[in-house]
Amino acid sequence: MQIKRHDPTKLLANAVEHGSLVFLAGVVAKDTDKDIRGQTAEVLAEIDRLLAKCGSDKSKLLSAQIWVSDIRNREAMNEIWIAWVAPNSLPARACVEAKLAHPKALVEIMVVAAKD
Amino acid sequence: MQIKRHDPTKLLANAVEHGSLVFLAGVVAKDTDKDIRGQTAEVLAEIDRLLAKCGSDKSKLLSAQIWVSDIRNREAMNEIWIAWVAPNSLPARACVEAKLAHPKALVEIMVVAAKD
Amino acid sequence: MQIKRHDPTKLLANAVEHGSLVFLAGVVAKDTDKDIRGQTAEVLAEIDRLLAKCGSDKSKLLSAQIWVSDIRNREAMNEIWIAWVAPNSLPARACVEAKLAHPKALVEIMVVAAKD
Repeated sequence: MQIKRHDPTKLLANAVEHGSLVFLAGVVAKDTDKDIRGQTAEVLAEIDRLLAKCGSDKSKLLSAQIWVSDIRNREAMNEIWIAWVAPNSLPARACVEAKLAHPKALVEIMVVAAKD
Repeated sequence: MQIKRHDPTKLLANAVEHGSLVFLAGVVAKDTDKDIRGQTAEVLAEIDRLLAKCGSDKSKLLSAQIWVSDIRNREAMNEIWIAWVAPNSLPARACVEAKLAHPKALVEIMVVAAKD
Repeated sequence: MQIKRHDPTKLLANAVEHGSLVFLAGVVAKDTDKDIRGQTAEVLAEIDRLLAKCGSDKSKLLSAQIWVSDIRNREAMNEIWIAWVAPNSLPARACVEAKLAHPKALVEIMVVAAKD
């Protein structure tokens, strides 16, 4: 079974396809001057882009992990999340607080999706 | 390959089936007045229930992530965990400390299992 | 589809094979007197060993989660990581800060890999 890797950096591939599964890297916003809503929207748009590269999309999400740098931002993040997820296609999910690599990053999201 | 989603909330599906894999959401106790042992037992009972919905069970666990809100509760959580896991069927596992969404939640567990 | 479990402890299996996937447990260094570079190298050597047990290797990594006990150690951990990962075979990855089970453990890494 072939492994396809997309958008590599020095550290990681931003998306990895294997069989019928797609593994994305943890995505953070590039513009960390945005507030939690803005950063969440940017992260989800990037997830859309990466899933499309793998022949998948948000209706095929299987699982998501979300880290927020301050758990009090969870509600605002959830607003943007709810507006984004595909109806009747919600993934399994966990959301906890964690200090992120970039000091001004407020949210990081890592998903696993199906591609067929 | 079909995706089946169970027990959706506004935010997530509590269980997602795809091929021979089952992805559960991070499970926390509903009764957060319980101590760490009580909350862990409640979480594991809910995992049993969700796995059963997907035609799986704890003997087919592949991987588990555990977050405890205070790492000093790990020992007590492990006692309940050890009593629960199926002999000779231990999953890969990681357990770290993290602040959880619900202030009184002491433990959250998210598993991946096989269903055949 | 058979599940094979390797190197069980009381709590977990250090590696679990299912179909074409391999799930490893979160690996920490045994020698926690080492600095972040030393602990990272030890963790990655153990991941090599566990993947080999499953008929896999680091060129087949799909996804990795990394927890560092102090996010300021991320740079030094990354140096060792970059020297270790197989060229053109980078996994999806997320790295956040978390308090780990062992007070002197500085890094824990949990990976999913393919085995064919």
